[in-house]
Amino acid sequence: MSYRAPIADILFAMTHEAGMDVGLKDGVFADLGDGFAEATLTEAAKFAENVLAPLNRIGDKEGAKFEAGRINAAPGFAEAYRQWRAGGWNAITGPSDYGGMDLPVLLNTACIEIWSAANMAFSLCPLLTLGAIEALQSHATEALKALYLEKLISGEWTGTMNLTEPQAGSDLGALKTRAERQQDGTYKLFGSKIFITYGEHDMSENIVHFVLARLPDAPKGTRGISLFLVPKFLVNADGTLGPRNDVYCTSLEHKLGIHASPTCTMVYGDHGGAKGFLVGEENKGLACMFTMMNSARLNVGVQGVAIADRAFQQALGYAKERRQGHVAGDKGEAMSAIVQHPDVARMLMTMKAMTAAARAICLMTAESIDRSRREKDSSARDRALARASLLTPVAKAFSTDIGNEVASLGIQVHGGMGYIEETGAAQFLRDARIAAIYEGTNGIQAIDLVQRKIGLSEGEIARREIADMRACVAALEGSNAESFGDMEPCLTDAVDALERATNFMLAACAARIGDALAGATPYLRLFALVRGGTALAKGALAAHRLTAAGRSDPALPGRIATARFFAETIATGASGLERDVTRGAGSVHAGSAVLDA
Amino acid sequence: MSYRAPIADILFAMTHEAGMDVGLKDGVFADLGDGFAEATLTEAAKFAENVLAPLNRIGDKEGAKFEAGRINAAPGFAEAYRQWRAGGWNAITGPSDYGGMDLPVLLNTACIEIWSAANMAFSLCPLLTLGAIEALQSHATEALKALYLEKLISGEWTGTMNLTEPQAGSDLGALKTRAERQQDGTYKLFGSKIFITYGEHDMSENIVHFVLARLPDAPKGTRGISLFLVPKFLVNADGTLGPRNDVYCTSLEHKLGIHASPTCTMVYGDHGGAKGFLVGEENKGLACMFTMMNSARLNVGVQGVAIADRAFQQALGYAKERRQGHVAGDKGEAMSAIVQHPDVARMLMTMKAMTAAARAICLMTAESIDRSRREKDSSARDRALARASLLTPVAKAFSTDIGNEVASLGIQVHGGMGYIEETGAAQFLRDARIAAIYEGTNGIQAIDLVQRKIGLSEGEIARREIADMRACVAALEGSNAESFGDMEPCLTDAVDALERATNFMLAACAARIGDALAGATPYLRLFALVRGGTALAKGALAAHRLTAAGRSDPALPGRIATARFFAETIATGASGLERDVTRGAGSVHAGSAVLDA
Repeated sequence: MSYRAPIADILFAMTHEAGMDVGLKDGVFADLGDGFAEATLTEAAKFAENVLAPLNRIGDKEGAKFEAGRINAAPGFAEAYRQWRAGGWNAITGPSDYGGMDLPVLLNTACIEIWSAANMAFSLCPLLTLGAIEALQSHATEALKALYLEKLISGEWTGTMNLTEPQAGSDLGALKTRAERQQDGTYKLFGSKIFITYGEHDMSENIVHFVLARLPDAPKGTRGISLFLVPKFLVNADGTLGPRNDVYCTSLEHKLGIHASPTCTMVYGDHGGAKGFLVGEENKGLACMFTMMNSARLNVGVQGVAIADRAFQQALGYAKERRQGHVAGDKGEAMSAIVQHPDVARMLMTMKAMTAAARAICLMTAESIDRSRREKDSSARDRALARASLLTPVAKAFSTDIGNEVASLGIQVHGGMGYIEETGAAQFLRDARIAAIYEGTNGIQAIDLVQRKIGLSEGEIARREIADMRACVAALEGSNAESFGDMEPCLTDAVDALERATNFMLAACAARIGDALAGATPYLRLFALVRGGTALAKGALAAHRLTAAGRSDPALPGRIATARFFAETIATGASGLERDVTRGAGSVHAGSAVLDA
Repeated sequence: MSYRAPIADILFAMTHEAGMDVGLKDGVFADLGDGFAEATLTEAAKFAENVLAPLNRIGDKEGAKFEAGRINAAPGFAEAYRQWRAGGWNAITGPSDYGGMDLPVLLNTACIEIWSAANMAFSLCPLLTLGAIEALQSHATEALKALYLEKLISGEWTGTMNLTEPQAGSDLGALKTRAERQQDGTYKLFGSKIFITYGEHDMSENIVHFVLARLPDAPKGTRGISLFLVPKFLVNADGTLGPRNDVYCTSLEHKLGIHASPTCTMVYGDHGGAKGFLVGEENKGLACMFTMMNSARLNVGVQGVAIADRAFQQALGYAKERRQGHVAGDKGEAMSAIVQHPDVARMLMTMKAMTAAARAICLMTAESIDRSRREKDSSARDRALARASLLTPVAKAFSTDIGNEVASLGIQVHGGMGYIEETGAAQFLRDARIAAIYEGTNGIQAIDLVQRKIGLSEGEIARREIADMRACVAALEGSNAESFGDMEPCLTDAVDALERATNFMLAACAARIGDALAGATPYLRLFALVRGGTALAKGALAAHRLTAAGRSDPALPGRIATARFFAETIATGASGLERDVTRGAGSVHAGSAVLDA
């Protein structure tokens, strides 16, 4: 089934749930006014629907191919990448000094949803490049920027992140790749990296690797890691390509999904050493890498939203066509479309509501990142940065969890056809499954949320967020719309549960860290249900206001129904999650003891 | 990773959770005494571990192959099937008059878990044969039994179920395959069937198809369906094989998983008509097919348990080997095994506890089936049959849902390695995914539970089941074991929630069927959480008693910890599910209206 970018849904969420309406008024999003956001998304949709989406299935079937040290992209991918570059899509958020458009992350986040939904395997290449651009921009010398930044922003060259080694996955402190200082101020790198996305391919002239490695005299653990830029081809002072550098792809993984995205083992220095350039300071590489990772984490969350939306579109289309049985009360001759069966409607609404909630959280995170850069007042920038830090792990983990859940429901809606590869529903599950793992597993995200984020400013950032959720619910009280159902009482209970769980967590982090870590995953889920549910409620109120004001938009009743469904059937899980967070640690520890026996 | 059949876990669940202890005392399971059950499972484990499990990965990679109308089983499968037959494994529950062993379904259910875990794709072949045996035994003429039953029980021939057609999936009333009466009392069949498991293969001399078709003068819908036996090779009066019948496989599906299980399109009658023999009465075919389907539904549930257990074994093994980071408080030099990290322990305990709960439900269902056949008193038989009917959809849907969830968690525990096909964790998810769909989708199971099962005997059967759950909890109150944690209050809340939700459902079925159907899926989940959680509590009490009695079994603390974990972190979802069941219908209907707009 073909893909249609949900432009109206995304714009509505940007505007009414993620705060673009406020940003347009207060000037933070001045560049998105006068229909610019809509026009951009409309163009992005055309490219995604016409160029990227038609390659999604063939990319899955054929995959990228490894032959004699080279990787050939899946059929059509190199040409699509050429068009991608020509369209300027790589440059949306890049700095204007280097050819970028300096547009908001919010807008790019919306675009990334569209690229990822159309073709997740393709979209990973520019996504990694985006991370490389941010690391370079934030931490590299002017000389390195001058040589590399423009080419990465244009997309002429692509970027990679080289973190993982066989013994160093979630624990980067264990990495062994070696960097040796050279007389000329450069370094020579030796070692192997695994799971490197687009580590090698034939879609661009050069590939710029960002590599974590350890100097000979470096302290142990994460304090002894440095970040290096290692290009596939060395770059001459005039920007032309020089000799091939000593970094090679030695194998390609055979994965569950995203077959067209080459996942490479990269070997550095087997022929004398790979020439590398320090980015940031020696031994401060992890901090630099985190610049890339925070942006990458939000973007991976967006992949979850994207696949979820695509799976929903396909399942809804099928459920409207496919006829089986008769719904209660239907005496007609013809069978009913399965969308009319309540149990199928429940599955589809679950898909729709989860997707909408995750999208709202991702766009909110993007909005905060923009405010952290664009606010005039430095304390407002700091507040926004702290909020983005708080929301990032939630955006990443919740969105990718629901990406899996929604893709699985999408298969279920199709019945037996869902299990047949040609249908396409199964690919969404296979593709989505990686997103809960890479860029920090969702367990790592939950630990980050609990151990580092909710405690920011002594809990003030988290408390402010909860106050904002409560304000969304309070606004509901003012409206007596019948279509809102029990949204208000359900969300009130959910916010209460989150507040109690947060207080528990803040105390546990100080006194019983083991208990806090044991409840981290259900806490993140609880946080996301309440943040997502209240954001959708905010959208429902806006839809209600627009309807009352006479706006004739056939999508408005659906926005209210989606928010209500989320509050009444999904956010209702809050009480169980609270209990799990606040009283479940004992059983986790008891379980841990018997597992390890 | 190799497979180890969890014999001790299964025996414990059979004995202490599913009532084998009582059945040994009251004589219903007399044939399982004196260690016979354990001895049988030990032999089954050897065969599964040594013959079936080593073929699981190659079966996935190579799959069954379709060439020129024939299907070649995956490498090694034909030889394994020969050994399977020779071992007598096909005959456990078959009637002794035809060479079967007449042993309890409970024992065979335990074996089916072991076969399915070792190699789900292989195990489907005998599973379908088992359904064929039951249909033949219950509904066929003596003449048909004499010709076919012994060969099916021995496994010399295999059986299939032919229900689905492109337009008739969940709604069998729409099927079009035609059967024409012949002068000699046989029938000629014409039509196509899709999704036929092991519809064609080279592992046995003959394949006996059970086919639903419609007579020319049949009433419309499900009341006009008849069941026919259609052999691949016609059978002479002396039991030898006669001419090839007019039924052919025309294509093989390309599926997400179970690649070694051929899923066939079967065409009947393209060369003059496929000769068929009526099973049961004309137009009563659906009732006969339900005999096969009820047994098949339990067995599909068991597949969910099986894959879940296998995924757990693999994930636990990995988590004990893999070292990353340091757990809180650990000052050692070496990294900690990831099993020691609380978040990983939570995932593993969730896997273990879900699997144990689903296993208990499946074994309880099997025990009830045995009692429905073996009790001396006819009213006891009827009660047991009603209980089996009540539990069957729960066993099927919950176990296969958790099969998916646990397999997905298994990938997550592996981190990036889980996404690499060679690891094997991904195959479990791909294989497991079908089980929630075939033999009636899990949505159909939920509707069956709500619309047909909880109302049996005006709700008496359901009320009796809930009373049994309450009795399990009441027994906990008597014990003050510290290791039980909050098991008792958590399960009390859960039983209360189930009771209220059941009362709501019984009323809704009578008055507002649309509301009942809208809440069917969360109701089934709620039922399963409470039935599973209380069964594990019963097991925990037994473990506690055995420990107090001085039994030195290192697994006993784990049984208590698992029950506690389930009660405190999984059954705690009951309150949210109750709210969803009792108050969520409005939002489903509102959603339905906008989806179908």
